[in-house]
Amino acid sequence: MIDASALRDLEDILPGRVSTSAADLTSYSRDQGPVLEPALPVAVVRAGSVADVQEVLRWATRHRVPVISRGAGSGVSGGAHATTGSVILSLELMTRILEINPDDETAVVEPGVVNAALNDAVAGHGLMYAPDPASYRWSTIGGNVATNAGGLRCAKYGVTRDSVLALDVVLADGTLVRTGHRTFKGVAGYDLTALMTGSEGTLGVIVGITVRLRYLPTSVHTVAAFFEDFTSAAAGVLAIGRARVQPAILELLDGNTLEALDGAHGSDLRRRGGSLLLARTDGYGAAAEAEQIRAVLLGLGARVSDEGSEEADRLIDLRRHSRGDEVDDLYRVGEDVAVPKSQLVGYVAALEAMASRHQVQLKVVAHAGDGNLHPTFWVERREGPQAQERLESALDESVRCALDLGGTITGEHGVGQYKRRWLAWEQAPKILALQAEIKRVFDPLDILNPGKAIVS
Amino acid sequence: MIDASALRDLEDILPGRVSTSAADLTSYSRDQGPVLEPALPVAVVRAGSVADVQEVLRWATRHRVPVISRGAGSGVSGGAHATTGSVILSLELMTRILEINPDDETAVVEPGVVNAALNDAVAGHGLMYAPDPASYRWSTIGGNVATNAGGLRCAKYGVTRDSVLALDVVLADGTLVRTGHRTFKGVAGYDLTALMTGSEGTLGVIVGITVRLRYLPTSVHTVAAFFEDFTSAAAGVLAIGRARVQPAILELLDGNTLEALDGAHGSDLRRRGGSLLLARTDGYGAAAEAEQIRAVLLGLGARVSDEGSEEADRLIDLRRHSRGDEVDDLYRVGEDVAVPKSQLVGYVAALEAMASRHQVQLKVVAHAGDGNLHPTFWVERREGPQAQERLESALDESVRCALDLGGTITGEHGVGQYKRRWLAWEQAPKILALQAEIKRVFDPLDILNPGKAIVS
Ligand SMILES: Cc1cc2nc3c(=O)[nH]c(=O)nc-3n(C[C@H](O)[C@H](O)[C@H](O)COP(=O)(O)OP(=O)(O)OC[C@H]3O[C@@H](n4cnc5c(N)ncnc54)[C@H](O)[C@@H]3O)c2cc1C
Ligand SMILES: Cc1cc2nc3c(=O)[nH]c(=O)nc-3n(C[C@H](O)[C@H](O)[C@H](O)COP(=O)(O)OP(=O)(O)OC[C@H]3O[C@@H](n4cnc5c(N)ncnc54)[C@H](O)[C@@H]3O)c2cc1C
Repeated sequence: MIDASALRDLEDILPGRVSTSAADLTSYSRDQGPVLEPALPVAVVRAGSVADVQEVLRWATRHRVPVISRGAGSGVSGGAHATTGSVILSLELMTRILEINPDDETAVVEPGVVNAALNDAVAGHGLMYAPDPASYRWSTIGGNVATNAGGLRCAKYGVTRDSVLALDVVLADGTLVRTGHRTFKGVAGYDLTALMTGSEGTLGVIVGITVRLRYLPTSVHTVAAFFEDFTSAAAGVLAIGRARVQPAILELLDGNTLEALDGAHGSDLRRRGGSLLLARTDGYGAAAEAEQIRAVLLGLGARVSDEGSEEADRLIDLRRHSRGDEVDDLYRVGEDVAVPKSQLVGYVAALEAMASRHQVQLKVVAHAGDGNLHPTFWVERREGPQAQERLESALDESVRCALDLGGTITGEHGVGQYKRRWLAWEQAPKILALQAEIKRVFDPLDILNPGKAIVS
Repeated sequence: MIDASALRDLEDILPGRVSTSAADLTSYSRDQGPVLEPALPVAVVRAGSVADVQEVLRWATRHRVPVISRGAGSGVSGGAHATTGSVILSLELMTRILEINPDDETAVVEPGVVNAALNDAVAGHGLMYAPDPASYRWSTIGGNVATNAGGLRCAKYGVTRDSVLALDVVLADGTLVRTGHRTFKGVAGYDLTALMTGSEGTLGVIVGITVRLRYLPTSVHTVAAFFEDFTSAAAGVLAIGRARVQPAILELLDGNTLEALDGAHGSDLRRRGGSLLLARTDGYGAAAEAEQIRAVLLGLGARVSDEGSEEADRLIDLRRHSRGDEVDDLYRVGEDVAVPKSQLVGYVAALEAMASRHQVQLKVVAHAGDGNLHPTFWVERREGPQAQERLESALDESVRCALDLGGTITGEHGVGQYKRRWLAWEQAPKILALQAEIKRVFDPLDILNPGKAIVS
């Protein structure tokens, strides 16, 4: 456990940047994921510069203190949860966009830049930063990189990793290194940039990000299709794939999600169908692609929006907010499995059966174009421990079933703290061991977000 | 040095798979890259199965023998060159396509499957394997993954890494592991799939590859534009980017390349311009995109092919063969730098100045949409050592200049053996050290392609 003199040392090194106020310790103690082991950090440091981050890591190495990097704390796997004796290293003040290079189609940002802020800044150049987690107005590029975040547009444009060219990283001992390259392509040495991407603060602190930008689409078309039930909407996803049309966005919402949206926004979505499929196409071919998708879905008997429907566009925005302000806890858990596309229909049917078997509530949204599903299971708080057990059983079964169908335990949210118990279900002991050894290469003292992301 | 009894041991373990014939030792002793230190292997093993590969690695671990994996030997960085006392492990007989999953849009292949063979096999399903190195009729998917190969279509569809979902890998001690996932997205644990991709046989032997397929485009349009000189054609690349139109292919050929093609194919390209820019668009928006590109290039004063020109399509095929059957040696070296797009024009001008200053011949083709250039420098063989020195100086300067402009020493060919001398120009000592430590995690005895890809 850290002693008082070590903490004074930190305050001396970084005057004005260290907080130990009860309010800060509490509000920085967790992200949006369920908390298994509640703990407060011993301090919160709000870094203002790369040099600050280096000082924190040098100090942490000297005193063997666990350091937990934190962006906006919007993560939902407990990756940024405090652990006993840890320091939270917040990057939220490092919000400078350092470069926008319109001809290179790249930008260089500090880690605390919010996803939406980068998009706002580059739009005037006809560019966009493609990965758009539903938390885009809030989550940071540093956090997005640390979790290899996905999002809606990923169906066409790929995940965060596909847009990251180079990283500035402060290593456990305070050394600053640069991985990758400023060019679109580059294969010199091992791909340390990809290794860092998705490493959830366990291999280094990301203090600078060079991203590749994409072209803002000339035109955008949106199709909204209501289906009788969830499985028939999932079949629609497959049918669009079989027609070999690539939407930019392809999102699936089940009936309970529609009901929740109706409750929050006064809409009447649930009345209009048992499930909603939203497809957006973009670029020079957008109109023709949307036409094709519309024809496919009409053929399946869906109620499909007209060309140019403004409602369809509004529904995409609603979908982005479909999580509302729910925070996961032990009575409500949002999951993040992914399955091969051909298994979508079967998995969705299995989920509904599980929910009723375990008597838990279920609603599902899915980045369906990527086979990535977010089932949220919940039970009534007042039902207490027994309901919690049913919830746990349903969660376990939903994860096991995704794995049995060739899927993964986490499509985009990361393992964090909460999903570690499932990691060995997916990965063989030798893979787990290799990961632990790589972690040791980067962090021999195990001070970088220990107990997260991997198991050892 | 390996002794005779060890070799007999290998032959006993893998009867019929081991060759020590002089002809095999010679023809498997090198790839298409320049040879700095000529060496013959002690044996060539043609593995027929994953179990064979495991046997070879177990044997190599017992006897401490370096193992050099080899696909088609089309590499141009000496990554597959034999070193003294090594065994060449050829995967060329493992050519089975194990799965094609049209609904999942994935395939699973053995490492020896030739790139074009996979594309032929999936085309009937309306799918394609996007990364298409110019060696696609010859190079293997295993080799493509091991080098993280690029290609022509990468401008739009990304490099090999962007199409690889999961890998089966035999580790140095013969253990078989699986990295990654069969789903499009997945962030469980560190990205070992990306770490393996581009590792040039130094971290493991790739024995199975699960790839993501893309949709065969509904339509394809090609624009050919002749420019007065090379720098003005390079400016055309920038202008297309500024118009925010994304071609699937964007290739640049200089005057000397046109002359070489004329010599080989009896065409009259050089007479028609000092440089050729080839753009291909594909998909639902292809016609509109091509129209836009045509307008941009006409505005720059280029001589642009008409819509629907068959010649333009033929020129793309010619470009794919522009390397001809040249094999690099100490008098002729093809390079592979990449620069940020904004630096293309300046770099191209610098290259021409270098060639004349050092009195060496130069021709250049470029995957220009990615800023990836392949300058080939050569001198007359009969001029001997002094000419070789001039060639070396020009090469060094071309690499140094690319780095000064924010570029990389290798956009897609890999470091192999030949480019190791430049790696420390690009990467800091700490990055080199981290790579060496990762190598040690996977290959503690240093038997996997030692002396390649990284420096330690
Ligand atoms: C309403 C809502 C919608 C969401 N939608 C999506 C979605 O569509 N797709 C998706 O992928 N996720 C989604 N998420 C999850 C979350 O927003 C992402 O994981 C996001 O990338 C986290 O960013 P952050 O800045 O909040 O990081 P944090 O939550 O602060 O941290 C996340 C992890 O990264 C580490 N970390 C943060 N910054 C750094 C850094 N600079 N260096 C090293 N490590 C760091 C932390 O230690 C932690 O392990 C959603 C969450 C919410 C609440
Ligand atoms: C005419 C021509 C055009 C080319 N065009 C391009 C191009 O457009 N883009 C591009 O990127 N490259 C290009 N190349 C280079 C070359 O074709 C690529 O690097 C290709 O990916 C090599 O594949 P291969 O099967 O021939 O591998 P090899 O040359 O046999 O091996 C390449 C490297 O990978 C390792 N390796 C091979 N197989 C395995 C395996 N199964 N497991 C582990 N390691 C393995 C080898 O040890 C070596 O280090 C071109 C080459 C030529 C000759």
